[in-house]
Amino acid sequence: MMQATLFQLDDYGPWTTTPAPRAEMDLQTLQSRVYADVASFVGSRDGYAFYARGDNLLAFTSGIDRGAHETLQSTIRNRYPVTLSAGIGTGSTPRSAVEDATDRLQAAGSAQDSTRTEACRGTALAAADPFHVAHFDVVDATATYTDETGAYDSFLAMTSTFEAVSRTLYEHHGLAFFVGGDNVLALCPLLAESTYDGVIDEARARAGVDLRVGVGQGVTPATAGMDAKRALEVGRESDRATVFADGATAPPADAAD
Amino acid sequence: MMQATLFQLDDYGPWTTTPAPRAEMDLQTLQSRVYADVASFVGSRDGYAFYARGDNLLAFTSGIDRGAHETLQSTIRNRYPVTLSAGIGTGSTPRSAVEDATDRLQAAGSAQDSTRTEACRGTALAAADPFHVAHFDVVDATATYTDETGAYDSFLAMTSTFEAVSRTLYEHHGLAFFVGGDNVLALCPLLAESTYDGVIDEARARAGVDLRVGVGQGVTPATAGMDAKRALEVGRESDRATVFADGATAPPADAAD
Amino acid sequence: MMQATLFQLDDYGPWTTTPAPRAEMDLQTLQSRVYADVASFVGSRDGYAFYARGDNLLAFTSGIDRGAHETLQSTIRNRYPVTLSAGIGTGSTPRSAVEDATDRLQAAGSAQDSTRTEACRGTALAAADPFHVAHFDVVDATATYTDETGAYDSFLAMTSTFEAVSRTLYEHHGLAFFVGGDNVLALCPLLAESTYDGVIDEARARAGVDLRVGVGQGVTPATAGMDAKRALEVGRESDRATVFADGATAPPADAAD
Amino acid sequence: MMQATLFQLDDYGPWTTTPAPRAEMDLQTLQSRVYADVASFVGSRDGYAFYARGDNLLAFTSGIDRGAHETLQSTIRNRYPVTLSAGIGTGSTPRSAVEDATDRLQAAGSAQDSTRTEACRGTALAAADPFHVAHFDVVDATATYTDETGAYDSFLAMTSTFEAVSRTLYEHHGLAFFVGGDNVLALCPLLAESTYDGVIDEARARAGVDLRVGVGQGVTPATAGMDAKRALEVGRESDRATVFADGATAPPADAAD
Repeated sequence: MMQATLFQLDDYGPWTTTPAPRAEMDLQTLQSRVYADVASFVGSRDGYAFYARGDNLLAFTSGIDRGAHETLQSTIRNRYPVTLSAGIGTGSTPRSAVEDATDRLQAAGSAQDSTRTEACRGTALAAADPFHVAHFDVVDATATYTDETGAYDSFLAMTSTFEAVSRTLYEHHGLAFFVGGDNVLALCPLLAESTYDGVIDEARARAGVDLRVGVGQGVTPATAGMDAKRALEVGRESDRATVFADGATAPPADAAD
Repeated sequence: MMQATLFQLDDYGPWTTTPAPRAEMDLQTLQSRVYADVASFVGSRDGYAFYARGDNLLAFTSGIDRGAHETLQSTIRNRYPVTLSAGIGTGSTPRSAVEDATDRLQAAGSAQDSTRTEACRGTALAAADPFHVAHFDVVDATATYTDETGAYDSFLAMTSTFEAVSRTLYEHHGLAFFVGGDNVLALCPLLAESTYDGVIDEARARAGVDLRVGVGQGVTPATAGMDAKRALEVGRESDRATVFADGATAPPADAAD
Repeated sequence: MMQATLFQLDDYGPWTTTPAPRAEMDLQTLQSRVYADVASFVGSRDGYAFYARGDNLLAFTSGIDRGAHETLQSTIRNRYPVTLSAGIGTGSTPRSAVEDATDRLQAAGSAQDSTRTEACRGTALAAADPFHVAHFDVVDATATYTDETGAYDSFLAMTSTFEAVSRTLYEHHGLAFFVGGDNVLALCPLLAESTYDGVIDEARARAGVDLRVGVGQGVTPATAGMDAKRALEVGRESDRATVFADGATAPPADAAD
Repeated sequence: MMQATLFQLDDYGPWTTTPAPRAEMDLQTLQSRVYADVASFVGSRDGYAFYARGDNLLAFTSGIDRGAHETLQSTIRNRYPVTLSAGIGTGSTPRSAVEDATDRLQAAGSAQDSTRTEACRGTALAAADPFHVAHFDVVDATATYTDETGAYDSFLAMTSTFEAVSRTLYEHHGLAFFVGGDNVLALCPLLAESTYDGVIDEARARAGVDLRVGVGQGVTPATAGMDAKRALEVGRESDRATVFADGATAPPADAAD
């Protein structure tokens, strides 16, 4: 089992246009700062948080208890003009953990229910099982894209790449996020090397982009993710597409993902 | 003519893995904060800046001169462990302005050239022409997605929606960006109402999502964008898909976009 | 025993003027943000951190282990153009704990030794003893100062008030910090109510300002400090100068501070 | 004539204890971030802003018009749980400009009047006259204090130094601020070199600390301040106590300050 958290800004849409539409760059600054604070808080406790839709942040929080979630909520309330609700979910895969987190928060009321403020629902795991973090990047991204192609075209190419990876991994119960540059990070159940090879094939077929991936394993995103980064470096140096870090394992042979 | 700026973190990829891979949440915090500072600086001067790839930020900067760009560069150098280069481009459409900005910065050297630091290339416009800002959102997003669907599924739905909008508008020389929640913002040349209707049709066909759009016009993103937000509110209240703000105009009848 | 940490920016003075003097508002922004990040990190772990000289931050960190200090150091390195060293000290009073923290860091090298980078010295306490947090504010500050006096005069009045409090408490091994508005916070060993009364008398004599104080007790600054705030509210409502929170105790009768 | 702005958080004291006292480190983080945003905004427009009491910020804003002040106010409202009022004052000296700024804001209502929100009073100067920025630091501060003395003792020594400088300069209508490390910055009318020598003498007599000062002159704080920093470097290299930058002038011989 692993743990995920859906953080949701309370009644945020209406706030952005009340009493009149607010300046877009102020909203972007606010969203980025709230995200940076959540990423920083979760990150210093070995979790990962992703921007996702900005008003709905997705975090992987194995090892972070409910009290810490509540501390984060009060911190946001004391720093920003908006408040944050949290649904803590658990599941055997990232996908099912996020689904559980969503269900719990939705049960507390609508995102635009003005009476739902700082809800915190769900129960933290006592002990988490290991999962994969897969770190993808583009082969020769700087030479192929950044230095050669229009900046917007490179951005669209990464969007398509992300979409190909995320759609494919989703079938295997992994959840991917674009994390800037030419990087896509995914939280996955234990998957076989051939599954990751397949994701890379899909990205080539659908987005015309060559990817590499490093895969790490651990009970927290920080440890698994750091191993994934090191494995990616090995792949870069040895020109291999898929590299598992030491200790990263495929699922048992009879497991169907 | 209008003005765009490509801001690029210098030699950032290598920095993220030197001397060893850096913690991912620290990188996400850094990227979000750099973006927030750029958005804040550009925004308080009536421009718009978008996160794009995080290490390549795209801004629309009509009315912001080169001296201000250099002030921003020195500010980033004094606050962060990374530096920022800028290419200032001009063009008759957002797309051509960004292409020009990219060309100018690429001519200064590779993004991973360790000797290219704080390059600032290009010339600011003395006077800009009006353009459109189009603000799209999803009809009944909260009831349809946020409160009903898994948080990751809603996120993927917005990614597909963004991709449909961006691919379609790109043909018309407009550039779109996902700005969080259920919102997509686009900088466009003066386009006809039927063109925006066509974008909405494409999004429905390709992503299965119903959009609305408000269109504002001005010589700076802030003024055009605020009008677009107000027009979107009008569309929401009156249940119209495409609403032009007062003063927003279609191109002359014989103009081909 | 209690624990204190001296955080020191490495080789910061020379950095501010290399290769040429940096813009003062950039330095102020940097210092404030570094402090905000340290305060936020320490605060979410029930400690307190104070700005002090900006390049030398003083924190009270009972309950925060050395690993957490190192996480904070790497976080600062990954976000800022400067690095942070830390001396962790222990002592029977705030004053002796800070002296120990200083000694440990000074033993690692000069603040302007360009080879001393991210030193972390000292050992965290396994278990801390209770201490006082005293929260002072000015009686009728808004009516007497903010709404009546020039803003700079009010600021100087608070500076003098702070100096009177800090000099007096220092004799009793307590350390005071101005925390904005009309508030002075002090970390103290267990002191008698009459000692706090004496501090208030000194402030009246030396700065001409009437103070109130709430005193809380605990093994972490956050718990003691929150009790102190509540005690101060009680004093405000009941017009008492010195209020001890429930559970706050004077030292044993024969203890000399 | 020169221009000053008093920025004041609206009804902030009550907010910090409503509905219950808020965590002190959250308040410190909030205050530091609001200040960093004000310093950043004002600084990128060639002004200076100082933390002062944290809820009352003092800025020198010659050249920044009222529209920019209002942009800053809306930016703060859109990012923080608090709002900001502003009094814009003018005067022939920093002291009289701040007094005027205070008068104007006080006339708009009490700092704790819950109906006074985002007041902006006063009129910006069309054209400003030159003034001095004086940048003081301590001779051999690192060797004498930071590396030798307890960190709290060094902090108190700087507090006393600041107080000696500020009290003395105040008589000459200059306003001083501690800006971290061993640095004190002052905005002054045009003063004679002998006046600055006298300030240094007072600091030695009252705080036992040896200071140096660089003096710059200009119509904006940024230009005068940068010249002051360069002059201070000259003083450091040539071991002179008071150095005027090129172009910095004493007042006419018959002027009494």
